[in-house]
Amino acid sequence: MKDECLGIEEIVRGIRGIDAEWVEEARRRTARLAIPPRALGRLHEISERLCGIFATVSPDVTRRAVIVMAGDHGVAAEGVSAFPQEVTGEMVRNFVRGGAAINVLARWVGAEVVVADMGIIPEIDDSVSEPHGRFRRCKVGRGTADIAQGPAMSRGQAVESILNGFRLASEQFDRGVQMLGTGDMGIANTTPSAAIGAAVTGVSVDAMVGRGTGIGDEALAVKRRVVERALMVNKPDRSDGIDVLAKVGGFEIGGIAGCVLAGAYRRRPVVIDGFISTAGALIAHCLCPQVVDYVFAGHCSEELGHRAMLKHLGLEPILDLRLRLGEGTGAALAMGIIESAARVIREVLTFEEAGVSGGTDVVPPLP
Amino acid sequence: MKDECLGIEEIVRGIRGIDAEWVEEARRRTARLAIPPRALGRLHEISERLCGIFATVSPDVTRRAVIVMAGDHGVAAEGVSAFPQEVTGEMVRNFVRGGAAINVLARWVGAEVVVADMGIIPEIDDSVSEPHGRFRRCKVGRGTADIAQGPAMSRGQAVESILNGFRLASEQFDRGVQMLGTGDMGIANTTPSAAIGAAVTGVSVDAMVGRGTGIGDEALAVKRRVVERALMVNKPDRSDGIDVLAKVGGFEIGGIAGCVLAGAYRRRPVVIDGFISTAGALIAHCLCPQVVDYVFAGHCSEELGHRAMLKHLGLEPILDLRLRLGEGTGAALAMGIIESAARVIREVLTFEEAGVSGGTDVVPPLP
Repeated sequence: MKDECLGIEEIVRGIRGIDAEWVEEARRRTARLAIPPRALGRLHEISERLCGIFATVSPDVTRRAVIVMAGDHGVAAEGVSAFPQEVTGEMVRNFVRGGAAINVLARWVGAEVVVADMGIIPEIDDSVSEPHGRFRRCKVGRGTADIAQGPAMSRGQAVESILNGFRLASEQFDRGVQMLGTGDMGIANTTPSAAIGAAVTGVSVDAMVGRGTGIGDEALAVKRRVVERALMVNKPDRSDGIDVLAKVGGFEIGGIAGCVLAGAYRRRPVVIDGFISTAGALIAHCLCPQVVDYVFAGHCSEELGHRAMLKHLGLEPILDLRLRLGEGTGAALAMGIIESAARVIREVLTFEEAGVSGGTDVVPPLP
Repeated sequence: MKDECLGIEEIVRGIRGIDAEWVEEARRRTARLAIPPRALGRLHEISERLCGIFATVSPDVTRRAVIVMAGDHGVAAEGVSAFPQEVTGEMVRNFVRGGAAINVLARWVGAEVVVADMGIIPEIDDSVSEPHGRFRRCKVGRGTADIAQGPAMSRGQAVESILNGFRLASEQFDRGVQMLGTGDMGIANTTPSAAIGAAVTGVSVDAMVGRGTGIGDEALAVKRRVVERALMVNKPDRSDGIDVLAKVGGFEIGGIAGCVLAGAYRRRPVVIDGFISTAGALIAHCLCPQVVDYVFAGHCSEELGHRAMLKHLGLEPILDLRLRLGEGTGAALAMGIIESAARVIREVLTFEEAGVSGGTDVVPPLP
């Protein structure tokens, strides 16, 4: 276990912020494009951050992948979800076969989908996974324990889930992937995510717990009490991301935290999806605040506490389409905008190149 | 002139709202997709509206084009823009050659760019336009007259600009284009757009006039007085869209109004861009309120009055990326989201097809 802990410490020590000089160089290039000053708003911010990440003024994010991290949750027994726990495995098979929303959206934006079993209860048969080649076995356990009764997992399992996520992401970067999206699947996983959100941000449980896949008022009241109890029983230490993950987290949430660390360590952008992915980013941020330089918030979820989580990370979401699905769908959609931003700084002609006259700040005479 | 007016009347008489039964059928299909109820938020609203437009549950918007409408404006002489008037023609050449932001973004979302001279001052030489095949000559005049002094154009020219836009859009639909974006180029054209916005919505000039390409405080004060004077001198009649266009409009704004009418007449979605395109949509809406069924608001512009214009039309923007460029850039970016929505309803498997268990609204027992 000690070695594994050292592994995370080594990763964290290897993380540097993005290159401010390249961001400045990119801003100078943006100023020369044949458009009014910064008229493409957030696209410029995105393209300039990409330049800082890749240390270039021609950022390339053509090769992209979304890793969908799946895990089961003991807390599902408390009645916090509208769906039965079997759905986790059923949806993993659906992802593997290519019929889910994340497969459809990733195809459109040109991203591959990788599906990782970080700790679901069932096994995915080779007969299901092998024909498609997008499944990875990284099972840390057969679902977490019920966080309303005690810790979700051991500290060693928390470290293992982070390092498994780190290795999965690193495998993608080794293959040449230039931009990584994160996604999740796990019945009941808005409950541990809300617990992480409340523990790390200090925002109240009532403001952090939402309706997940669509529970009614009574189940929502139950879910709030479950999260309160999870925090009371476990007392997660917000100064220690591994402790928070072990006590109130989930295996797929640890995997997402590992992806975020890997992006920062390998200097590659990571596009996080909604509530669960952002809980993973909060864990990574506890371990190393500088990771946010490499994180793009794909969208703002409908899930109640998501905006407060993003505020804690200092991230502004790219899209706001009232999504609340997970799977990485918001990350995939945002990849289309990030690709656009990369193309703007690479391909739009400058005033000189286009033979277009510049503007003026001189105030003309009054009429 | 009378025949031309009749032309618009005929178009308006040919416009019907979208098919509510197909929208209902689409909602039933959405409910069967293997996701929590309506968990993709606005993507469902978009895909269901596409189903109503095309009378299908498999909407296809693969073939798409953005028409960039260009015109010059006499009001530029009042000092309302940060850029010299020559930039209109220079940018038209840039669009024709493919080096501008709209070309870059349209390439990414798979949309062709068509550039229309609706009334710019210079001529675009065949030597510039012919190698690229995307330029259309529809010049109604060599720039409008100064709206601070009198009407922008004659009523006949207003009708001609709308019908030219209608024909340009119809040409695209005849070629098989399934989704049309609108864009604009014209130095000073936020000024007539703001005048249209104030005249049609009744919102104050101060709340409607913004900084356009980036003017300072003094020029902004000038611009507000210019719009006030344009409204006072011309007294546009908001019950008559052609009157508003003739008195305080622009040739490219009329062209955009024609595109919106064509989308509604031919039952094809039209994605409007920012402030100027929405002014065009306001003119079309004056002529036929039902056009909004076919209009998607691509984004919310940074330009001050844009949100009030969209509110008047009852349209919610798809993106909010602080864009204020025009050219159709926000429409092109939104086409990527609309394509995503079409794919979701076409390609995501249902619960049955995917072998995934459904959810429940039953409230579980308290823990």
